[in-house]
Amino acid sequence: MAERLDDAAIGAGLGELAGWSRVGDEIRKEFERAGFADAIAFVVRVGFLAEAANHHPDIDIRWRTVHVALTTHDVGGLSALDFELAARIDEVAS
Amino acid sequence: MAERLDDAAIGAGLGELAGWSRVGDEIRKEFERAGFADAIAFVVRVGFLAEAANHHPDIDIRWRTVHVALTTHDVGGLSALDFELAARIDEVAS
Amino acid sequence: MAERLDDAAIGAGLGELAGWSRVGDEIRKEFERAGFADAIAFVVRVGFLAEAANHHPDIDIRWRTVHVALTTHDVGGLSALDFELAARIDEVAS
Amino acid sequence: MAERLDDAAIGAGLGELAGWSRVGDEIRKEFERAGFADAIAFVVRVGFLAEAANHHPDIDIRWRTVHVALTTHDVGGLSALDFELAARIDEVAS
Repeated sequence: MAERLDDAAIGAGLGELAGWSRVGDEIRKEFERAGFADAIAFVVRVGFLAEAANHHPDIDIRWRTVHVALTTHDVGGLSALDFELAARIDEVAS
Repeated sequence: MAERLDDAAIGAGLGELAGWSRVGDEIRKEFERAGFADAIAFVVRVGFLAEAANHHPDIDIRWRTVHVALTTHDVGGLSALDFELAARIDEVAS
Repeated sequence: MAERLDDAAIGAGLGELAGWSRVGDEIRKEFERAGFADAIAFVVRVGFLAEAANHHPDIDIRWRTVHVALTTHDVGGLSALDFELAARIDEVAS
Repeated sequence: MAERLDDAAIGAGLGELAGWSRVGDEIRKEFERAGFADAIAFVVRVGFLAEAANHHPDIDIRWRTVHVALTTHDVGGLSALDFELAARIDEVAS
C-alpha cells in the first residue's frame, strides 16, 4: 500500500526528476512532441506504462503538447507511485 | 475558410448533436469508455479524425473518461469545423 | 506455467470461440474494421490485452483487416493462455 | 497518379534509404523497438503517416519487432509513393 509523502520526501523526489513541478497534491510536466501524431503515439506509450503500474495519470492533449499530472487518490496526496511512474514516463519521452 | 458562427447557428448545431454542450467559445462532451485501455484506443481513433480534418480538439483523459473540447482558434469562436468534427467523433464513439 | 493442450482440448477450446481456426500450432482470426484508423485503434486495444496477459499475439495489419495469431512458444504449441486471450480479444472486438 | 518504377528507379530509390530491401514488388524493413509497448506506439505513429499519405503499408507486429512492407497495388509494383512513405517512416523511427 502506498504511503502519503511529506514535503521533505516530495522535495527529494522532485530533485531526482527533471521538468516536473508540484502543484498542490500533484506533480506535473509538459511534454512537447514534434507534432500531433507524435503526441498521440506518446500518449499510447504512457498509457501502457500506466496500465503496467495500475496507476493512471491525468493526461491532457493540446495539439502537440501533452500535459501529465500524477497524484495518488488513495492516500490523498503524493506517494512513491507517482515518482516511480514519472521516472518511467521520462524514460520513454526521451 | 471557416466562419465564426453566431448564437443562433451554434444553437442549431447543438440541436443536431447529442450530449455536447457549449461552454463559452467551446463545445464539450464527455465520453465514458469501458476502461482505461478503451479510453486510450478511443483517443487514437479521435486522433485520426482530428488529423484528417486538420482540426485538433483538446482531449483530456481521466482514467476511463475522455473529455473532448472543440473550438476554432482562427475565428475566435465556434465554426462549422467544430460541429462537423463533433458529429464524426460521435460516430466512432458509438 | 502453461501446459500444451492436446487435440481434444484444442477442439473444445475452439468450440467455445467464434471465428477462430487452428493452423498448425496457432489459432487465428481475421477482424475486419470499418477502416484503417479503426484497425489501428483495435490493434492498440488488443495491445493492452496482450500486455496485461503478458502474452503477445502476432498481429498483421492489412489496411482495415487485422489478422491475429496466437500460440504459446514456451510449450511449443497451444495452451490455455491462447484461448483466454482469444476470448478477451473477441470481447473488445464486438 | 503514381507510376510504376522500373528496376533502375527502384535501385536508385533503395540507394537513398537505409535498411530497406526489395522483395518482388515490395520494399520491406524491420524495426526493432525497445519493447512491445514501444512497437505498438510506433505502429500508431506509422498509421498516421499512412493515413496522411493515403497509402497503407502491410504492418506485421512480432512482439517488439515491426515489419513494414510497401507496394502500390494500383500500378502493380513499386511507385514513388512507396519510397516517399518509407523515408517518412524512417524519420519517425529514429
